[in-house]
Amino acid sequence: MANGAQALIRTLVDAGITTCFSNPGTSEMHFVAALDSAPEMRAVLALFEGVATGAADGYARMADKPAAALLHLGCGLGNGLANLHNARKGKVPVLNIVGDHATYHTQYDAQLQSDIETVARNVSSWVRTSQSAAALCRDAAEAIATCMGPPGQVATLILPADVSWSEGGVPASLPRIEPPAAADDATVAAIAQALQGEGKKAILLGCRALRAPALMAVARIAARTGAELFSEVFPTRLERGAGLPPVERLAYLAELASVQLRGLDHLILVDAKAPVSFFAYPGKKSYLVPEGCQLHELASPAQDVLGSLDKLSKAVGAAQATPALQALKRPGLPSGKFTADKVCKAIGQLLPENSIIVDEAQTSGIMLPTYTAGAPRHDIITLTGGAIGQGLPCAVGAAVACPDRKVIALTGDGSAMYTIQALWTMAREKLDVVNIIFNNRSYAILNVELQRVGAGGAGEKAKAQLDLTNPPIDFVDMGESMGVRSRRATTTAEFVAALEHALRTPGPHLIEAIVPPTLEGMKLRVLARVLKSLSKLPPPLARAIKRGIAP
Amino acid sequence: MANGAQALIRTLVDAGITTCFSNPGTSEMHFVAALDSAPEMRAVLALFEGVATGAADGYARMADKPAAALLHLGCGLGNGLANLHNARKGKVPVLNIVGDHATYHTQYDAQLQSDIETVARNVSSWVRTSQSAAALCRDAAEAIATCMGPPGQVATLILPADVSWSEGGVPASLPRIEPPAAADDATVAAIAQALQGEGKKAILLGCRALRAPALMAVARIAARTGAELFSEVFPTRLERGAGLPPVERLAYLAELASVQLRGLDHLILVDAKAPVSFFAYPGKKSYLVPEGCQLHELASPAQDVLGSLDKLSKAVGAAQATPALQALKRPGLPSGKFTADKVCKAIGQLLPENSIIVDEAQTSGIMLPTYTAGAPRHDIITLTGGAIGQGLPCAVGAAVACPDRKVIALTGDGSAMYTIQALWTMAREKLDVVNIIFNNRSYAILNVELQRVGAGGAGEKAKAQLDLTNPPIDFVDMGESMGVRSRRATTTAEFVAALEHALRTPGPHLIEAIVPPTLEGMKLRVLARVLKSLSKLPPPLARAIKRGIAP
Repeated sequence: MANGAQALIRTLVDAGITTCFSNPGTSEMHFVAALDSAPEMRAVLALFEGVATGAADGYARMADKPAAALLHLGCGLGNGLANLHNARKGKVPVLNIVGDHATYHTQYDAQLQSDIETVARNVSSWVRTSQSAAALCRDAAEAIATCMGPPGQVATLILPADVSWSEGGVPASLPRIEPPAAADDATVAAIAQALQGEGKKAILLGCRALRAPALMAVARIAARTGAELFSEVFPTRLERGAGLPPVERLAYLAELASVQLRGLDHLILVDAKAPVSFFAYPGKKSYLVPEGCQLHELASPAQDVLGSLDKLSKAVGAAQATPALQALKRPGLPSGKFTADKVCKAIGQLLPENSIIVDEAQTSGIMLPTYTAGAPRHDIITLTGGAIGQGLPCAVGAAVACPDRKVIALTGDGSAMYTIQALWTMAREKLDVVNIIFNNRSYAILNVELQRVGAGGAGEKAKAQLDLTNPPIDFVDMGESMGVRSRRATTTAEFVAALEHALRTPGPHLIEAIVPPTLEGMKLRVLARVLKSLSKLPPPLARAIKRGIAP
Repeated sequence: MANGAQALIRTLVDAGITTCFSNPGTSEMHFVAALDSAPEMRAVLALFEGVATGAADGYARMADKPAAALLHLGCGLGNGLANLHNARKGKVPVLNIVGDHATYHTQYDAQLQSDIETVARNVSSWVRTSQSAAALCRDAAEAIATCMGPPGQVATLILPADVSWSEGGVPASLPRIEPPAAADDATVAAIAQALQGEGKKAILLGCRALRAPALMAVARIAARTGAELFSEVFPTRLERGAGLPPVERLAYLAELASVQLRGLDHLILVDAKAPVSFFAYPGKKSYLVPEGCQLHELASPAQDVLGSLDKLSKAVGAAQATPALQALKRPGLPSGKFTADKVCKAIGQLLPENSIIVDEAQTSGIMLPTYTAGAPRHDIITLTGGAIGQGLPCAVGAAVACPDRKVIALTGDGSAMYTIQALWTMAREKLDVVNIIFNNRSYAILNVELQRVGAGGAGEKAKAQLDLTNPPIDFVDMGESMGVRSRRATTTAEFVAALEHALRTPGPHLIEAIVPPTLEGMKLRVLARVLKSLSKLPPPLARAIKRGIAP
């Protein structure tokens, strides 16, 4: 006879959920005690809930199945919310299991009592407070089926302590999941006609369309029809490198994305949404699809991406087309003055095959896509929801999901500090992660944004809000404090040596790269002027400038 | 002509809100730029939102007025939620200003878009998204008036970027706030009768009733009527020490609180709620008021506490009574084997007058109330909502509010890691905080809870979830990494020397106390048996045991 918690863990394992990233408290103690009843379940402890949820996100992006995140009531869920937001925006399946007070205890409004369901709704497509041990596993099965999608979603199962500890738990199996439908014939025909007709055409790929099988299919279509290929700005997981079709990522800066999209007559969306500006700026457009450009959706996030591309491929006669593939091309080792650019170049030169890059480098990573484009095949995971503090936790999850692959996590100093506790879990689990922290001692991206929003005449107090020099953070001490071998690089040669060492030595590493802010050399007002004039320049010139300053 | 942000900051300053704890992003850049328009406004940068909200909580507890917390959209608010929960439960006024996308941008569901109002509702009594620069300051004034209470509350003003940047902001002043009413005559008469009649009586004090003026009034009533005085388990701010009336805090462990409350015939609540168990435990009571005990509420959180006590004092003829006051009594310097107990004893011996203790020490702080009872007058701030990660941020806020007072923040190793980024703000602002981290390398309280919930037969995987030895966290490296002078103490003498040094040297300090888990020596099953039998023992014996093992 199983209690609720034991039956729940059995249900998870039977559904293939064999990893749980956790930060438990008293209300989760029966779940914790039940861990030993299922040898298949791996429990990975985090010191902060944002690490647990970010790890569940990173895990699912790489494992293509959800992990569970075990959280402590509404406050634990709150701490995990930002990275659940990133998962939601990236359409990544995550199953939250949030412990709650015993059902009969909630009436007393004890200290930790809060409205968990309300918090959960911000990020979850599915929320339920399970009411009995007998109902628990059916609830869990429904949650798992929902979160697996497509599209991948966040589901939150709230588990009262007495439901967890009561006898009468019965493991449940997943409901039958209908396979998603491919695009219907009329849609495919209309898109095929657009692609084969006159005018300038592009295909914008998101989410599952950025994985190798879809990329190969779409590259054949592009080869046959002349369509350009774009990726959404922040891919959930982009497979790229030598041997795969290259796609150009839309730029974060709307001014640059507008140049990329200029003159389009047809834009085909595949598991992607119409491009919009990340933020609004006074007097600038939010919606980036050019006027007169016709939008088509081949496959929505709920549809069968591969099946839809297959139908389109047949409709345009691309099945036998030869896709353009990226050649192996390394940029060479960097030398000279140490900058963020040199870090990216060294990564491009040294990146091992099959690596996973987790990119939260912000301004410092501007040149990363360029330098790594021709590296051996690899994956890149990005900040899908814009909620910073995603990089290090996602790297934890990716490394747990793929123990045979090297994970390289790039993060800004400001970004790293949101969920720095992830380093401890890396050390505890001996994860094969090379953390590269660009320490430019500022929220450099906000210096750019301050100009862009037109708040440029900022005074000393305002500038101080973006400045991280006082005190400077010592990321070597920080990494060592949590058991991660850490080194500082202040020159290009030191960085290359540190990276080579880290790549050939298993286990977690941290390299603190002391670099100037990427845009420091470029006067920000000049940048603002360039951005403003860019959309008025002839496209080839604008694009050339863009390539120089953006991914 | 002011834009929305400038007018908003003027409104805040005019209402007495002169401190803003911030972690801004692009959508808050106009607010940031406007900081320099108001020299009265101090902006204190945090590296993580939970630090900003916890600091706003600690600030308001000490300054008796709200600070603002500047947060970045729904994800920033999410990161700040746990400490806002603590503020909410402690009835502490906090004004959140949450930046949002421009009003016209939300339709595009950009990366950072989420339902901010829904997240805010979990903690906020008042939530509004301001719709224009003209309306903004009226909205803000209403938010401030609401959050100031009584009771103190969390109010969340959502500030779209275009409302912030648009011209047409008009500073507003606060609406007239009606003073709260005191208890009515009939209530006072009934309570006076109960206090003057037969039977065992106690007064349970919460929130504002734990401040010196109320304590003096209630101690006179106690002296006149023989009522016992209790404090709620987790006081928002308790004034105590030599010269003030001592009150006994209800114990965290329900088994012990039951002993404290046993045999009561009347329990009078003053800005406090009827005591309940922190968590539910299988087969144990949640509601701790003994059967047959009559509950009376003298003053609700919305009422005038001092006025109500004054009326009661007159009704029982206590105006001239001599209150029992705590004598100055230091415990002496500790020596011998280094334990958490010795840390508490040293604090009791060395605590400077007018200090502020922020207590998130969990199991390691069990003896703190005993050893500091007779120290010079001081304040203690505790974990009102049970959401850990409150201590270090609250210490930031308390130190900003009271630059002339020494702040001593006690925190467990597990607790410290939720919001460890607070150390950086302490270094940046040169705050006079002595951080004492009890490093017992475990979630020690969860080892107790694991037994208490009856999940005692835990296996290796379960135990590993409570274990922080692998890797051990080095809090000296951690503190130094963020610019805080840090020392390790492994012996009682080392600790005493480190504490003496820190107390006489201005600025932030960190002392890592390497101690065994407090209950390690006591077999947990034995503790469970003691707790179980306690309520069956004669009260004096039970109380004696309790005093030995609990605050």
